[in-house]
Amino acid sequence: MILKESPTVTFIGAGNLATQLALCLHKSGIKIIQVFSRTEEAASLLAMKVGALSCTHIPDITSEADVYIFALKDTVLEDVASKTPVNKGLWIHTSGSMPMNLFAPYKESYGVLYPLQTFSKTKEVDFSQIPLFLEGSNEKVMDTIKKLANILSPHIYFVDSEKRKRLHLSAVFACNFANHLYSIADEIIRETGIPFSVLFPLIQETAAKVQELPPLDAQTGPAVRYDQNIINKQIEMLKDSPEFQEIYRLLSQSIFHLQKK
Amino acid sequence: MILKESPTVTFIGAGNLATQLALCLHKSGIKIIQVFSRTEEAASLLAMKVGALSCTHIPDITSEADVYIFALKDTVLEDVASKTPVNKGLWIHTSGSMPMNLFAPYKESYGVLYPLQTFSKTKEVDFSQIPLFLEGSNEKVMDTIKKLANILSPHIYFVDSEKRKRLHLSAVFACNFANHLYSIADEIIRETGIPFSVLFPLIQETAAKVQELPPLDAQTGPAVRYDQNIINKQIEMLKDSPEFQEIYRLLSQSIFHLQKK
Repeated sequence: MILKESPTVTFIGAGNLATQLALCLHKSGIKIIQVFSRTEEAASLLAMKVGALSCTHIPDITSEADVYIFALKDTVLEDVASKTPVNKGLWIHTSGSMPMNLFAPYKESYGVLYPLQTFSKTKEVDFSQIPLFLEGSNEKVMDTIKKLANILSPHIYFVDSEKRKRLHLSAVFACNFANHLYSIADEIIRETGIPFSVLFPLIQETAAKVQELPPLDAQTGPAVRYDQNIINKQIEMLKDSPEFQEIYRLLSQSIFHLQKK
Repeated sequence: MILKESPTVTFIGAGNLATQLALCLHKSGIKIIQVFSRTEEAASLLAMKVGALSCTHIPDITSEADVYIFALKDTVLEDVASKTPVNKGLWIHTSGSMPMNLFAPYKESYGVLYPLQTFSKTKEVDFSQIPLFLEGSNEKVMDTIKKLANILSPHIYFVDSEKRKRLHLSAVFACNFANHLYSIADEIIRETGIPFSVLFPLIQETAAKVQELPPLDAQTGPAVRYDQNIINKQIEMLKDSPEFQEIYRLLSQSIFHLQKK
């Protein structure tokens, strides 16, 4: 299948990623004809924003679209795909950790478009800065997905499902786990009455620093030289949370080990 | 002691923080008369940059300065302070976790100026964005330190040594530990041949997001709903490093626990 000048798109899913992706395609002049979500409210809200029809029952998903973007949670992706009426459109999912060939039982032409970014429904993101990781079941599909991806961002890479899985794991550390450390910092600072916002410049600079030097070289803090005295004192300060103590201990050890490597 | 219009400063230490602090004060017209470091090269380099004399022996530290800024590693701070010839100047240290009263045996007037930021020697920082946490042994000192701090940044807070210790612990999580997660992400992605730089927009956005909503609300990823299937698969992918596996497991549990709280 060759991408028309203006292909029509159906979104399966209306979550954070679906919302941001649909908004960006819509702004770029791509016609979104339908938005499916099991949640009526989510389907209608996104459909309204992008001038599409909404749909809450899988059998009602149109067969008229050129491209179907499955932007769903990993836990429901296979199930929804298996129930979607087979049609002539190109099926694409957006998951980092799910293999491309979950579509294989239903289609010959399918692929993946995985944007490496964290999305919220309300905070608009600039897609042109986001790296997109693509995969296609054959060369024609790859060409089509590439054209679609290029509407969103110039940063496109073709990687297979195995590499994409590793990439996603890497992102779990850099994003999900890093954010959790911000949550712990928030918990710790709360007791002092000092607002969490005093940490913003530090969080910003830490994130900015690794763009200039490798994180291993940017590493600072008591764990680098395994300063036992301060490490013990800090673990003692966390005595109300054995879990935070264990995280502190384990990350300090790991910093020290990685520096020695 | 009242801060003169243009007080003279001696730096004890020539590391990352000392360098950035001295450069900023120098640019603001403060006269830095001496830089002490046990390392000849570090002392000379910083002294040259700020038009000061260098000094590598503690007994040679001048008694002529109005202010002495001890910007040293926590591990050597007390030792160097105890050996510094007592003089009439105001002694200030810059440590998050060391108490103010380590100066008490030698002086009546002393204090703390703790900038909550991560510093490198080469990457210049904008001090005007950095929150400064101050403490003084009496009101006069507090007034003096406040004036000095205001040259650097409008974001100043008075906190006691106990609160400052907690603040520093909070910063260890938000900065040192977060940076270590970037290092782990770097290790994981390396095997794929995809450059670490593809993670920059994600790292940036994750850091930016917590300025708009609390980190607990910004949390995403498989651990939020404790998606056992993907968690187990990701732990399996880390089989070459039991330490990374343990970090993955512990942080995922902790995310789940904090979300339920």
